[in-house]
Amino acid sequence: MARSTLYEQLASELRQAIYSGELGPGAQLPTESDLMYTHKVSRNTVRLALRELETEGLVSRAPRRGTIVRDRRPLRMRPQDELAGLAPGAPRREAFLTAVEGEGRRLSQQIEVHIVVPPEEVASRLRLNEGDSAMVRRRLRLVDGQPYNTADSYFPLDIVRDSAIAHPPDIMQGANRVLEALGHPQKRFVDDIWARMPTPEESQRLQLEPGTPVVVFVRTGYDPHDVPVRVAVSVLPADKHTIRYELER
Amino acid sequence: MARSTLYEQLASELRQAIYSGELGPGAQLPTESDLMYTHKVSRNTVRLALRELETEGLVSRAPRRGTIVRDRRPLRMRPQDELAGLAPGAPRREAFLTAVEGEGRRLSQQIEVHIVVPPEEVASRLRLNEGDSAMVRRRLRLVDGQPYNTADSYFPLDIVRDSAIAHPPDIMQGANRVLEALGHPQKRFVDDIWARMPTPEESQRLQLEPGTPVVVFVRTGYDPHDVPVRVAVSVLPADKHTIRYELER
Repeated sequence: MARSTLYEQLASELRQAIYSGELGPGAQLPTESDLMYTHKVSRNTVRLALRELETEGLVSRAPRRGTIVRDRRPLRMRPQDELAGLAPGAPRREAFLTAVEGEGRRLSQQIEVHIVVPPEEVASRLRLNEGDSAMVRRRLRLVDGQPYNTADSYFPLDIVRDSAIAHPPDIMQGANRVLEALGHPQKRFVDDIWARMPTPEESQRLQLEPGTPVVVFVRTGYDPHDVPVRVAVSVLPADKHTIRYELER
Repeated sequence: MARSTLYEQLASELRQAIYSGELGPGAQLPTESDLMYTHKVSRNTVRLALRELETEGLVSRAPRRGTIVRDRRPLRMRPQDELAGLAPGAPRREAFLTAVEGEGRRLSQQIEVHIVVPPEEVASRLRLNEGDSAMVRRRLRLVDGQPYNTADSYFPLDIVRDSAIAHPPDIMQGANRVLEALGHPQKRFVDDIWARMPTPEESQRLQLEPGTPVVVFVRTGYDPHDVPVRVAVSVLPADKHTIRYELER
């Protein structure tokens, strides 16, 4: 194994202190001068080490505040919860809502409705022809007033055009119930999960710190005739979310 | 909305060309000089734009080769496949193996077996006391000879100490069958999924390009008495993997 440089050694020590919990969420790291003194290294070495930890999403740095260990305790989403909510008479359930409420936190959202030509990954899942439009409900979801994630649900235009889905206010009973009333209950979900770095627009909208990837969660809902009737694309900042599935034999 | 700078405009144009497929995987971007000429911008502006695309994982840059659009077509993992493989008499199935073989690609792996004090996220899932050891089988998996992902399976020491799990060679029938023979068949899985930036060690081991996050996939297997008997931690470079679950009502 290659010998590590001075700044890698320093980064490694600080990383261990963070992972072990010695430096917990919100803890302030020693100042640059302190680290220079205690580790007998140059200011440049200290800065390289701190920048590395920032890139890994372990700390955030702000003028005057110094370097702070980030709170990495994320919200746990359970995509299977929504399935239970589809049963006749069951209350509306949505993985994110359930998770937020379970922690006693306050959820709010900003909703916009548009008719758009969806991105390729959505168009192919809705089996649209090239250039076909779809209805999209774009939601920015905030927890305790802070932007938390985005959830954009796309629907075939001919199915939802005259329904509550075409109007901006929150749909009290949930879009799934509306689809049901329109004769298209969802019987099957296909969930695709991947991660990537955010686009500049996402960084700005979600107020992401540098070095924070996003998890993309795409759920496609099929009706009993196996027609895709909804594609929901969630963009989940990776430092704030985990996803859990439970499988039984 | 804030007006974007020159380099953001250029990055945005190139990004659209990549997402639309106009510049497909493996395509070469115009040279810096060409971009300066066609967009009437400075070399610095071109470099800032290209660096942004690199950070987003859309292109890779190499001396002399120029800037290449990365192949973002990832391998699709189906974690539910392993469940089918647990049935009596069923052939061994593993999400990753199945996915690789389905594409006609060649899988190889490097296996090491160690007794270690596992990281906190594993120890708590195995319900170990602080400082307790576990057996770990560390695997680096290669596809067509290239490092692809890592999969480390942790087992309670007292259960697997004298079994095939304690020895480095690949276990032909799979570790799940060995656990079964030891009286601990897995009846239930809990899967946790999140993403983060790689550690420097992971970047090196998996030969990651700059700006590539990793997806962490942790599967905990429980025996019929709800005792956790295996915690498998996979580190999946985000540009090479997607995860798919299918749910039925």
